[in-house]
Amino acid sequence: MHVGPVNILDRVLYAGLKNNVGFTSQEFVEAFQFSLKKTRELFQVDNTYQPFLIPGGGTSAMESVTSLLKEGEKVLVVTNGVFGDRWVNIFRKYPIKVNVLSTEPGYYVEPETIEKEVKKDKYTLVTFTHVETSTGVRQPIKDSVKAVRDYVDLVVVDGVSSVGAEEVKAKDWGVDVYLTASQKALGVPPGLGILVLSERAMERLKDEKSIAGYYLDLRNWLPVMNSMENGKASYFSTPPVHTILMLSEALKIIIDEEGLESRIKRHEKVASAIRAGIEGMGLEIVAKKPEAYSNTVTGVILKKTNAGNVLSEIVSEGVELAPGVHPKLQGKYFRIGHMGWVTENDAIVTIASIERVLSKLGEDIRLGEGIKATQLYLAK
Amino acid sequence: MHVGPVNILDRVLYAGLKNNVGFTSQEFVEAFQFSLKKTRELFQVDNTYQPFLIPGGGTSAMESVTSLLKEGEKVLVVTNGVFGDRWVNIFRKYPIKVNVLSTEPGYYVEPETIEKEVKKDKYTLVTFTHVETSTGVRQPIKDSVKAVRDYVDLVVVDGVSSVGAEEVKAKDWGVDVYLTASQKALGVPPGLGILVLSERAMERLKDEKSIAGYYLDLRNWLPVMNSMENGKASYFSTPPVHTILMLSEALKIIIDEEGLESRIKRHEKVASAIRAGIEGMGLEIVAKKPEAYSNTVTGVILKKTNAGNVLSEIVSEGVELAPGVHPKLQGKYFRIGHMGWVTENDAIVTIASIERVLSKLGEDIRLGEGIKATQLYLAK
Amino acid sequence: MHVGPVNILDRVLYAGLKNNVGFTSQEFVEAFQFSLKKTRELFQVDNTYQPFLIPGGGTSAMESVTSLLKEGEKVLVVTNGVFGDRWVNIFRKYPIKVNVLSTEPGYYVEPETIEKEVKKDKYTLVTFTHVETSTGVRQPIKDSVKAVRDYVDLVVVDGVSSVGAEEVKAKDWGVDVYLTASQKALGVPPGLGILVLSERAMERLKDEKSIAGYYLDLRNWLPVMNSMENGKASYFSTPPVHTILMLSEALKIIIDEEGLESRIKRHEKVASAIRAGIEGMGLEIVAKKPEAYSNTVTGVILKKTNAGNVLSEIVSEGVELAPGVHPKLQGKYFRIGHMGWVTENDAIVTIASIERVLSKLGEDIRLGEGIKATQLYLAK
Amino acid sequence: MHVGPVNILDRVLYAGLKNNVGFTSQEFVEAFQFSLKKTRELFQVDNTYQPFLIPGGGTSAMESVTSLLKEGEKVLVVTNGVFGDRWVNIFRKYPIKVNVLSTEPGYYVEPETIEKEVKKDKYTLVTFTHVETSTGVRQPIKDSVKAVRDYVDLVVVDGVSSVGAEEVKAKDWGVDVYLTASQKALGVPPGLGILVLSERAMERLKDEKSIAGYYLDLRNWLPVMNSMENGKASYFSTPPVHTILMLSEALKIIIDEEGLESRIKRHEKVASAIRAGIEGMGLEIVAKKPEAYSNTVTGVILKKTNAGNVLSEIVSEGVELAPGVHPKLQGKYFRIGHMGWVTENDAIVTIASIERVLSKLGEDIRLGEGIKATQLYLAK
Repeated sequence: MHVGPVNILDRVLYAGLKNNVGFTSQEFVEAFQFSLKKTRELFQVDNTYQPFLIPGGGTSAMESVTSLLKEGEKVLVVTNGVFGDRWVNIFRKYPIKVNVLSTEPGYYVEPETIEKEVKKDKYTLVTFTHVETSTGVRQPIKDSVKAVRDYVDLVVVDGVSSVGAEEVKAKDWGVDVYLTASQKALGVPPGLGILVLSERAMERLKDEKSIAGYYLDLRNWLPVMNSMENGKASYFSTPPVHTILMLSEALKIIIDEEGLESRIKRHEKVASAIRAGIEGMGLEIVAKKPEAYSNTVTGVILKKTNAGNVLSEIVSEGVELAPGVHPKLQGKYFRIGHMGWVTENDAIVTIASIERVLSKLGEDIRLGEGIKATQLYLAK
Repeated sequence: MHVGPVNILDRVLYAGLKNNVGFTSQEFVEAFQFSLKKTRELFQVDNTYQPFLIPGGGTSAMESVTSLLKEGEKVLVVTNGVFGDRWVNIFRKYPIKVNVLSTEPGYYVEPETIEKEVKKDKYTLVTFTHVETSTGVRQPIKDSVKAVRDYVDLVVVDGVSSVGAEEVKAKDWGVDVYLTASQKALGVPPGLGILVLSERAMERLKDEKSIAGYYLDLRNWLPVMNSMENGKASYFSTPPVHTILMLSEALKIIIDEEGLESRIKRHEKVASAIRAGIEGMGLEIVAKKPEAYSNTVTGVILKKTNAGNVLSEIVSEGVELAPGVHPKLQGKYFRIGHMGWVTENDAIVTIASIERVLSKLGEDIRLGEGIKATQLYLAK
Repeated sequence: MHVGPVNILDRVLYAGLKNNVGFTSQEFVEAFQFSLKKTRELFQVDNTYQPFLIPGGGTSAMESVTSLLKEGEKVLVVTNGVFGDRWVNIFRKYPIKVNVLSTEPGYYVEPETIEKEVKKDKYTLVTFTHVETSTGVRQPIKDSVKAVRDYVDLVVVDGVSSVGAEEVKAKDWGVDVYLTASQKALGVPPGLGILVLSERAMERLKDEKSIAGYYLDLRNWLPVMNSMENGKASYFSTPPVHTILMLSEALKIIIDEEGLESRIKRHEKVASAIRAGIEGMGLEIVAKKPEAYSNTVTGVILKKTNAGNVLSEIVSEGVELAPGVHPKLQGKYFRIGHMGWVTENDAIVTIASIERVLSKLGEDIRLGEGIKATQLYLAK
Repeated sequence: MHVGPVNILDRVLYAGLKNNVGFTSQEFVEAFQFSLKKTRELFQVDNTYQPFLIPGGGTSAMESVTSLLKEGEKVLVVTNGVFGDRWVNIFRKYPIKVNVLSTEPGYYVEPETIEKEVKKDKYTLVTFTHVETSTGVRQPIKDSVKAVRDYVDLVVVDGVSSVGAEEVKAKDWGVDVYLTASQKALGVPPGLGILVLSERAMERLKDEKSIAGYYLDLRNWLPVMNSMENGKASYFSTPPVHTILMLSEALKIIIDEEGLESRIKRHEKVASAIRAGIEGMGLEIVAKKPEAYSNTVTGVILKKTNAGNVLSEIVSEGVELAPGVHPKLQGKYFRIGHMGWVTENDAIVTIASIERVLSKLGEDIRLGEGIKATQLYLAK
C-alpha cells in the first residue's frame, strides 16, 4: 500500500521474464506497438494525439516537456504540494520565466484563482498536478483546464498518480500534454515515463529549436515511436525493453480485460472503503473536501503518534505505507497508496493493520470500529 | 549475439521477480548499497571515486556529464564512429564549445594525434569511447589518457561496450568519469546508466552552477547515492527498482563468483574463437589492427551478400546478430556481439550458424572451415 | 484458504525455476541431501529414523506403508473421517486383515477406546490420522500412541494436515512411520510424499518379502535416499526434480529461518483468529471440543445457506475455500484451510469475505462482528 | 543433452508459476481438460481411447498396467535392455506368470521371434519398449504389434523415450496401452505418467477385480479423467497441479504450434546430425542397424577412454550427458539424449564439446572432423 512503486501482478511481472529479447526483436516491437495503441485509450485520446514511452519515470516525462519550450517563454506552475513544486525545480534550470500558484496542504488551487492569473499575464504553458502524491489531494482538472484553455498555448497535466485510476479525458478536456509513469496506477515496475501530446504540442516539435537537452528531447524519440507504431524496430537510445514488455501486458489487462471504467470504479470503491475505515477509527484525512479525495492516495493525520513509528511498525504486519512528505505537515501524517492492482481485500488488511498498530502505539482510536466500518462499506 | 541488450542469465532475471519491493524497502536498499560497492570494484577504483546508478542507460549517463561543465567551456570529442559522434550531438545542445577528432571506420584515433590537439588548445574535458559499438574498434585508453592527462581538467571514457569484458582501470589510468550501461557486458536488462567519478570530477559538483538540466544533474542523485551507501532509503525520483535488484545479482556473480579477471579472459577467448571462425571461413574483420580488436563486438565485412539478408535469415537459426550502423560501410558488414554471459558454446553456435546462412545466401566462404577453425582454437 | 494445495510463497515457487537441472546434477543432489536432513528436524527425529521422499503425495506415502507388511498380518485403522477411511481402502486391496475404529464427524476416537481394542486382538500395525482434513478434527496423537505402543509392532501416523503446523514429535511419542505430503502445511506444490521410519520400521525393510508392489516399495527407494544423503546421485525412477528443489527451499525457510516452533505458533494464532471470527459472526465449528481444534483446518457449519453457494460466491472475493466432504454432513458445512504460509492478514481477509458473502446469501450472521472479533483477537 | 529430465523451454516452465492454483480452480480444470484432449492427438488416437494423467512417471505408468490384469494371467515381456527388464521387475511383484524375450545390447528382438513365442503360448498381455533408453535402440513397433496382435489380448508399449519425437500411431498400429512420462520428449518437468487405453483395455477396468494396488489402480483415476474432460473438478488424490499446468503449455506448443510431424522431423534431423558428428570424429554407435537408430537417444562406444571421465569432464563445457547403464557395456559407452526442445544448435554444441573433451582425454578421434561433419549435414 505504498504510493509507488506499487504491488505488481504476477502476470505483469512474468511478462518481463525474457532472457533474449532485444529491442530489434519481433516480440519487442509488437509489445511496443501495442503499448502505444493502448496508451491512447488510456488517456482517452484519438490518433490526433501522439503517445511517447521514454526511459525514466514521472520526472523525466515532466522534464521532456522542455522540448516544447523556447528560450524566454513564460510558464505557470499550479501546485498543491511537493510534486507540483517539482515543475518549478525543473523549469528553473532552463532559460525561461516561471510563475507559481500554490496553496496550503489539503487544498487545491481554485480554478477561478488560476483563471485570474492567466488573464493577467501571457503564459506559453500551464502545468497542473492531477493528484498531488504528497497529500492525496485531487485537482479538478476538467474545470481547471476550462479556466485557462483560452489564454495559454499549452496545457500540461502531471497524471502520475491518476492515470489508470481516475477519470482522465485528455482530448475532451483539451489537455496538450498528459503524462504518467509506469510504476503508479498502471502497476508496472518503475522505469518508464508515458506521455500523450496533442497536435498543438506536436506542432512545436517541428521547430528544431527548443530549450531541451538531448536524452529528454522528444524530437529524438519521435522517429522511434513512429517506427514502432508501424511495426518496425528503430533506435535512438536503448529503451527499458523488459519494462515495456510488462507495460504491454498491464495495458492488455487494464484496457482489454478489466476495462478502464471498471478499473476506475474499483479504485474508487477501495479508496472509499479505506476512508470509511480511517474515519471509523476516528482519524482525519489530509484532503479537506470530499471532491479533493483521490482514488489513489489518502493522507491520514495522526493525533499524537509519530508517523515514522507507524511506518516502521506496520512493516511487520506485511503492509508498507508511505511517509507524509509535505514539509508543512512533516511527521504528522502518513500516506496510504491504493492504486494499481489493489482489491477490497487490500482495503480490509490495510485498515486492520493500521488499527492494530495505532492501538499498540497508543494513538487515540476506536479499535475494531475502523475495520467494521470498512467491512460495512464494502458489504453495501 | 546482439550488441545489446544481450542474453541475460536466468539467475539475474529472476532476481527482479519481486512484486512488492518498493524503493524504501530494506531489500532494495541493500541491493543498491551492494551495487554501489561492487561498482567501484568493477571500474577498479577505491573510495576516492563516487559511483552513480541513474535511470536510462549509456546516453543518459553520457549526458549527465554536463553536470560537470559550465557555460562557455570547451570540450574535445575523440570519436571512432557512431557512438563517439553521440558525444557531439549531446554537447551541441548546450552552451559550450565542442571540437572533434575522428577517423575512418576500422581505425582509432592515434594517441599522438590527440596529444597534439590538446596541446594546441585549452580543453576542460576530453571524451573517449573505449569500444566503439558501431564497428567493434577498441581505443587504447591507457595510452590515450596518458597523452592528454596533463593538458585537460577532466577525462571521460564511455565504457558502454567494455566495462565487464575489457581491462578497465579507471583510477590507475587517471580517468575522471568512466561510464557504462546495465544492458551490455554486465548482462542486465536495459534501464540503468552507471558511472564512477574521481575526486576531481566530484569537486565540480560542489559548485551549484552547471549547464545540466534537472533529471540528469548528478547533484540531484548524489544524496540518494550517499544515503543508499549508508543503508538508508532516500528519494529524488523513482529509480528502476527491479533493474537494480538484477544489477546487484549480476555484480555478485561478476565480481564475487566469476571474478573480473576470469570474466575478461572468458570474453577474450570467446572473441578470439569467433574471429578464428570468421577468418577460417574466409571473411575479413572491420577492425584493421589486432590491437583494435575488442572482446565484445566484431564487425564482419561481406564480399557480396547484403548484410540485411544475413540478419533476417539467421534469426531462424536461433541467433540474433546486429546490423552494421556505420554510415560509411552501410549494408556491407554486420556485427557479432559477444558480451555478458557468452560462452564457448555461443562462439561455436554463432560461427556454425553464420557459415550455414552465408553458404545458403551464396556468399563466397569455405563451409565447414570456419567452425573447424573455431573448434581448433578452443581445443588449444 | 483451501485445504491444499495451499498458496505458495514466491520464493519457494521460484526455487523450481530451473530449466536444465537433471536428477544427476550437483544442484539437485544437494537439494535432495538438504531436504532429507531437514525432514528429520521437521518430524523431530534423529539419525535413528530414515527419511523418504517419494513421488505422489499423501496417498502414495500411505500405500508405501505396505512395504512393512506381510501377507496375513492384521492392521487396525483408527479413523475420524474421509482420510482415515482411506487407510481402509488401501489395505483392503492387499492380502491382510483390516479392522476399523471410527467415530461421528466432529469427534475423535478416544485413546481409551483404542487401548481396549489393541488389548483385545494382536495387531501388527495401527494407523492414526493426526488432523482429519475432511472435518478439521485433531486426534491427540501423543496419548493415542501411548495407549497402543505396548501392544502393537508398528504405529503409523498420517500427518498430512499437521506436519509443519502442529506439534509433531515422532521419536518422543514413539511413532514408527510419520508421513506427510508436500502440498499442505509445508506450502510446496503437490507431487511428493514424505515419510520418516523408525529403526523398528526399517528392520522390516530388510526382509525382501512384503505385500508391496514395485513403485511404492520403499526398498526400491532406500538406496536412492542413502546415496543422496551421501551427496551422490542415484536412480531408481525419476523423482519430481523441481518439486524437490522447491521442498528444499521451503524446508530452509521453515526450519532455518522461521523456525518450527514459531511456525506452529503462527498457525495456532491464525487458526484462533479465524475461529474467533466464525464464532463472532454467530456460526458453529465442526470440531466439537476445543482440544480437537486443529491449527490447519476449520470446518464451519451453516444454519441455512447451502455450502456450495458459499464456495462459488466467495471465489469472486479472491478467497478460495474447500467443500465439506464428510458424507454425514454433506452440503451443510465448508472448510477453511489455514496452513502453509498463512498470515494474520489472511485471517482478516478470510473472515471479512466469509461475512460479506454469507450476508449477501441471507445467512443468519452478525455482519461486522466476525471481523471485529478477529481483529480484537489479533490485537491482544 | 541428458536422457531425461531434459532441458525445459522457459515458456513451459513459466506456465507452472502459479502460487494459488488449487486442483478445484477453473484454470487448473481447463489445463487438465486441454491436456487430455491433446494427449489423444499426441498418441494419434480418437475418442475410443481413454487418456490418463497420473502422478509419478514412466514407472508408475508401467505399474498401473496391473489394473488390467487378474491373478494367474500370463504376460510376455519383450526387452532390449534395462527399461524393458523393468517390466519384469514390476510383474514379478504380482501373482501372475511372466515370460521374457530379450536380446544383446545394440539389437532389438526381431518381430518373427516374438511371433513364434506368442503362437507357442497363450499370453494375456505383451509389453514392448519403443525406444530402449539404456542403449538408444528403437524397436520396430508397427511390425512387432502386427506379429502378436492376433494372438494376445492386450498389447502394451512403453513410449517413454519415443512419444513426441518418434512416429507413434497407437490406434492404427493396434496398441492397447501406449504410455510415456512428462520429462522426456515432451520436455516437461518430471512428475507425470501419461497413458492412453484402447476400448479393449478399458473393458478390463469395468471388472472390479484386478491385481492392482490402490494408488496406481486406474479405476480410481478414471472418474477424475472423466470429470476433468467434462470441465469439472474432481478428486481422488491430489495431482501434481503445477506439472499439469506445464504439460498443458507443452502440449499446446507441440500439437498446435510446432505440429507433431514437424517435431518428429526436427528430432530426426538433430539425431542424424549428431550421429554424423560421432561417425565424423571416428566413433561407433551402440545401435547396430540404421533402422534401430532412435530420434531421441544415441549411445556412443568409446575406444579407450573411460565413459565416467567423459561425463564429469564435459559438465564444465555446459553440456550434460548420461552414463551408459546397460550392464553388459558398463563404462564403455555414454549416451546423448536429444529430445524435447533440442535444436540444430544443440547438435553443434554437443558434438563440438564431445570432440574437445575426448581429444583432451586422449581418445583416438579426428578433432574438428566431427563438428565439420555435423555442420555439413545440417547445411544440406
